[in-house]
Amino acid sequence: MKIEEISVGQTAEFSKTVTETDVILFAGITGDFNPAHVDAVQAEAGMFGGRIAHGMLSAGFISTVLAMKLPGPGTIYLSQNLRFTKPVRIGDTVTARVEVAEVIAPKRRVRLATTVANQHGETVIDGEATVMLPA
Amino acid sequence: MKIEEISVGQTAEFSKTVTETDVILFAGITGDFNPAHVDAVQAEAGMFGGRIAHGMLSAGFISTVLAMKLPGPGTIYLSQNLRFTKPVRIGDTVTARVEVAEVIAPKRRVRLATTVANQHGETVIDGEATVMLPA
Amino acid sequence: MKIEEISVGQTAEFSKTVTETDVILFAGITGDFNPAHVDAVQAEAGMFGGRIAHGMLSAGFISTVLAMKLPGPGTIYLSQNLRFTKPVRIGDTVTARVEVAEVIAPKRRVRLATTVANQHGETVIDGEATVMLPA
Amino acid sequence: MKIEEISVGQTAEFSKTVTETDVILFAGITGDFNPAHVDAVQAEAGMFGGRIAHGMLSAGFISTVLAMKLPGPGTIYLSQNLRFTKPVRIGDTVTARVEVAEVIAPKRRVRLATTVANQHGETVIDGEATVMLPA
Repeated sequence: MKIEEISVGQTAEFSKTVTETDVILFAGITGDFNPAHVDAVQAEAGMFGGRIAHGMLSAGFISTVLAMKLPGPGTIYLSQNLRFTKPVRIGDTVTARVEVAEVIAPKRRVRLATTVANQHGETVIDGEATVMLPA
Repeated sequence: MKIEEISVGQTAEFSKTVTETDVILFAGITGDFNPAHVDAVQAEAGMFGGRIAHGMLSAGFISTVLAMKLPGPGTIYLSQNLRFTKPVRIGDTVTARVEVAEVIAPKRRVRLATTVANQHGETVIDGEATVMLPA
Repeated sequence: MKIEEISVGQTAEFSKTVTETDVILFAGITGDFNPAHVDAVQAEAGMFGGRIAHGMLSAGFISTVLAMKLPGPGTIYLSQNLRFTKPVRIGDTVTARVEVAEVIAPKRRVRLATTVANQHGETVIDGEATVMLPA
Repeated sequence: MKIEEISVGQTAEFSKTVTETDVILFAGITGDFNPAHVDAVQAEAGMFGGRIAHGMLSAGFISTVLAMKLPGPGTIYLSQNLRFTKPVRIGDTVTARVEVAEVIAPKRRVRLATTVANQHGETVIDGEATVMLPA
């Protein structure tokens, strides 16, 4: 999108089921082998009662909405604040949602409220992103 | 680590070369197929002159240090602020570094300064994390 | 195989269970994140009552039989027609089968009937391939 | 998209660099270990002078455009004809393009011309797809 096409209140979403495959591959790429993610035995004995996905994996879906939908291809990521409010379990279907909060046209920048929710409508991540559009 | 073992100023690091495989897999897990990451032709014509890694992939290495080293296994991620200050290119070797900024012992919480730098010592991400230790 | 070894009516098969991992990786390679494949919640509410595999993933098994068995290594793929007649669900075991329909020896070309069936014997893909053998 | 929003001549595209990672993962998912794809030594001695990507991998990008852009999420794949006209090498950047050829509104079906081209504008796949839109 062009900066002129973006206005406060616009929203976009991306949904995906978080599978064991996603968690294993994410661990493999990043090196984050926290037992909460990759050790079923320890995770079941732990505070969440089972393996959970990496917070940054769910946060990655925010990046997906920004890059693929709003503002869309070419978007440059400037900042992201994240608050992890609930765990995402393997098998949960999460929806990342962005909503335009401010358009700073002279700088081609957009500020967006960003949330990720699970299939029960519970917020698992909330936060805010700032992006820049290409010239 | 236990909360009593953690003190302001402690640091830990994790380094990894960001390969094309990492970028392709990260796109595959998240669905973020921004041409900046997956289309060499468009990326070369774009503002960075070539493909760059997903910001959230480099941010994932912060999660790795927190989970693997400081505070280590069992760490619960509460929040993360990220500022993407420079692109990470395929082939760059980045180092995620965390430094304890505050210990809130009664709540078993730790606040850490978090940065990711490239092989030239340039900061590519800075920000701050809050984590909780298991009981 | 050499063109002289191939005759009308010869068949070959390849079977594989289609796992969630296959579907997630296929989405990851191609960028096809159709909710029918990656979003369990939307897929369950949709016309197939659950997630299904990408049609092109099952079609890929035809390529496997051609390349691995008949005519085998070195085969050059010239054309493939595909009709997707039933969905393939995660956990289904499919069998790709090719049968030589015509041998065009002077051009080193072979035309084959190609089908993929599920574990209940139901055809999920039918079509036709043309391949060329190396000199 | 809804069937009423689709008209003859509409187009959509998806571009991606085909990496070695893609080829290796595709081989792993499908079992198509044709030396042309996975054996650099044999492939270099062969008729293409190097490893090429699986035809069905490039064909998969057609599925991506159909599912993600035109007609978009929810699209049901009915048929696809493919003619492989040139090899895709590792490192090539390909663009899958679909163009609406016919809208059969009462059946919610759409026929589309489908091509994949490389970074030099050469067609590597041409063909035709038929898809159905959800009710």
